Amino acid sequence: MPEVITAVDAVDVRFPTSRELDGSDAMNPEPDYSAAYVTIRTSGGGVGFGLAFTVGRGNDVQVAAIRALAPLVVGLPVAEVLGDLRAFSERLTGDSQLRWLGPHKGVIHMAAGAVVNAAWDLYARREEKPLWRLLAEMSPERLVSLVDFRYLRDALTPQEALDILQRAQPGREQRQRDLLARGYPAYTTTPGWLGYTDEKLVRLAKEAVADGFDLIKLKVGADHDTDIHRLALAREAVGPHVRIAIDANQAWGVDQAISWLTSLAPYEPYWIEEPTSPDDVLGHAAIREAVAPVKVATGEHCHNQVMVKQLLQAQAIDILQLDATRVAGVNENVAILLLAAKFGVPVCPHAGGVGLCEMVQHLAMFDYVAVSGSTRGRVIEYVDHLHQHFVDPVVIREGRYVTPEGPGVGARMHPESVAAYTFPDGPQWQSER
Amino acid sequence: MPEVITAVDAVDVRFPTSRELDGSDAMNPEPDYSAAYVTIRTSGGGVGFGLAFTVGRGNDVQVAAIRALAPLVVGLPVAEVLGDLRAFSERLTGDSQLRWLGPHKGVIHMAAGAVVNAAWDLYARREEKPLWRLLAEMSPERLVSLVDFRYLRDALTPQEALDILQRAQPGREQRQRDLLARGYPAYTTTPGWLGYTDEKLVRLAKEAVADGFDLIKLKVGADHDTDIHRLALAREAVGPHVRIAIDANQAWGVDQAISWLTSLAPYEPYWIEEPTSPDDVLGHAAIREAVAPVKVATGEHCHNQVMVKQLLQAQAIDILQLDATRVAGVNENVAILLLAAKFGVPVCPHAGGVGLCEMVQHLAMFDYVAVSGSTRGRVIEYVDHLHQHFVDPVVIREGRYVTPEGPGVGARMHPESVAAYTFPDGPQWQSER
Repeated sequence: MPEVITAVDAVDVRFPTSRELDGSDAMNPEPDYSAAYVTIRTSGGGVGFGLAFTVGRGNDVQVAAIRALAPLVVGLPVAEVLGDLRAFSERLTGDSQLRWLGPHKGVIHMAAGAVVNAAWDLYARREEKPLWRLLAEMSPERLVSLVDFRYLRDALTPQEALDILQRAQPGREQRQRDLLARGYPAYTTTPGWLGYTDEKLVRLAKEAVADGFDLIKLKVGADHDTDIHRLALAREAVGPHVRIAIDANQAWGVDQAISWLTSLAPYEPYWIEEPTSPDDVLGHAAIREAVAPVKVATGEHCHNQVMVKQLLQAQAIDILQLDATRVAGVNENVAILLLAAKFGVPVCPHAGGVGLCEMVQHLAMFDYVAVSGSTRGRVIEYVDHLHQHFVDPVVIREGRYVTPEGPGVGARMHPESVAAYTFPDGPQWQSER
Repeated sequence: MPEVITAVDAVDVRFPTSRELDGSDAMNPEPDYSAAYVTIRTSGGGVGFGLAFTVGRGNDVQVAAIRALAPLVVGLPVAEVLGDLRAFSERLTGDSQLRWLGPHKGVIHMAAGAVVNAAWDLYARREEKPLWRLLAEMSPERLVSLVDFRYLRDALTPQEALDILQRAQPGREQRQRDLLARGYPAYTTTPGWLGYTDEKLVRLAKEAVADGFDLIKLKVGADHDTDIHRLALAREAVGPHVRIAIDANQAWGVDQAISWLTSLAPYEPYWIEEPTSPDDVLGHAAIREAVAPVKVATGEHCHNQVMVKQLLQAQAIDILQLDATRVAGVNENVAILLLAAKFGVPVCPHAGGVGLCEMVQHLAMFDYVAVSGSTRGRVIEYVDHLHQHFVDPVVIREGRYVTPEGPGVGARMHPESVAAYTFPDGPQWQSER
């Protein structure tokens, strides 16, 4: 009997972060950081873990979507799934009925991502490698075979992708050693949430600098005068040499973004993140042209590789902030890294949330070793929340991610945490009542 | 005690259309046309009906999303909801936690659309008017107030929207009379499903012409030689003067679309619908430039007004095919009609499915009376499936929609149909087992 997948379980896990206003921004005043947490189980006792990050209400809908995918997965031979993870990914994103709910966007696409990542986690555990190394040790041909090029070929052909990967191949071993020795640069959003007091902002900004970060991020976009006040405070706290990125979380229209940013320009923000609707490719291009040299960054809500393709084709962004759980998992993120490399745009992943730091670090590190071959202009977001719930929590040292060596994609949580924070019946939520 | 909303019910209704291959196309080989069917109830005995259309599996996820919105609605005073339907719409699409599941796309956005449309249905019933007339009798100022301009102003300002509506105002009464006398032009997709035999295609194409249609649509994109064979058959069946539109349902990449269409050009297709990913604004623009004079049409999967804005800004389409249930309901479709009018692009709504004909006719008719003021180059899709389940089924006469006069938005189904086709426990599905 071949080993088969016997279960795809999904649990609604929510952390009551709104109590502390951690994660508060112009569009997310009171998030309860949550995960639709997936466990794949096999008849051979294998397990794989994935998740979709959400901010509270609706996490049950995300769980329902994962459960709707389960019948497509249960019963599949494990060897077949792990032997062709692109086919597995397309099975989930291309189902002729479920596809209508997207296509390739929103709840159903994030559900596919959680399940695809869980399959990659199973694979990485079997190979006893962290995801970044599993990918970084694949041949260029194998990596190209992971990507669905149907809607990409006008911007990136399989041959171009292969060329990019082959160019990076000679330095792979050297960069892998460098990564293990020095880690990967990080920046911190910890000081910058809108709900924090001035005192807390200043204290956390100073701590960030003392901890070795040379880039911090502030939330903006709710109130113009407050933005100027907080930017000035932060600049005074960190001094002239630490970069300050700002993040509007989609608060503005295109023209409004341009005028608001023009007035913030004297404070020299390094990048403006999510100035407007994440769907507005042409809007980002217009903003970028108007606000240079301030860089334009987006990606955490960029719902698939077709949108990434257009952001790059339209020269709409300076920085691509891919997300581990917004798109359909590792396969689509490999495509996104290749697109970014083709267009020469650095990837600075979105993190924070629940497990995003743990997951995106693998993608950035794989990019460094085997795709772009560089960390220049690249940083991974870091937020110091909720890591204690993960079996392999990220480690930050002197403003850098320490390279993980344990197996998997980073999504595995402690069973005790999952049980305690299951919504609405876990003890942490019962005590709320 | 003011009248309040007491319930937002959602039912999973599925029709086993895959048994007959009705609705089969290049991406949807075996759809079971379905509706996540919403009923709003009030303490005063009022009711309003809405729905989200899906194609089978995943309709339960759509229902779960509607249920996730219900707590935002239950308990609201009816007068407050109906007095400011824009605020109601933004309450649903802007909830700070649920918004993360989109934003403004996919399952959660369609759920908002179903609930917003149900509220409009309640309103129209109260006013005893069909939706098209309810809208067409509102002042230009009131219509502008329905729209969320946050992400639109760079393409359409409130003042420009007002100007469009005021320009159309003098002819409203005349056009309303014309509409009641002559109806609105339709085209038919009935002959063109991929799953049909040659004989059935030819027979239905001839019937369509005999029934008064001067535009039919064929599905293409699965097999190149089959497309040419079927196009030739259809052309022979309908003669040289009936237009034949073709619909690839997203089957192609950009370059592939251009080469495939070049080889179909001798058969003079009137428009090519959904040649590639619905998200690919720039791709549609490239295709349009390459395949002119064949028109490029899309919209049924265009997930929000920001995407419509860009399709228009990029001159990517000749025809906009809005959908009644893909976006967040009547409010967003009013915005979309105004955008199309600003850019001079005709709207030819997507229909078929479950109740889409019944619903989109109101939007097209409102457009004619009060927005574009024209039916030139405009047709509403018609497919002759499933109308018997609706309380006010569309009526087609001599290739035109007969203007509806009953109250509501068109989504109300017979309770017997809802009960019979409820999935998985209704008798029509029980007998499947």
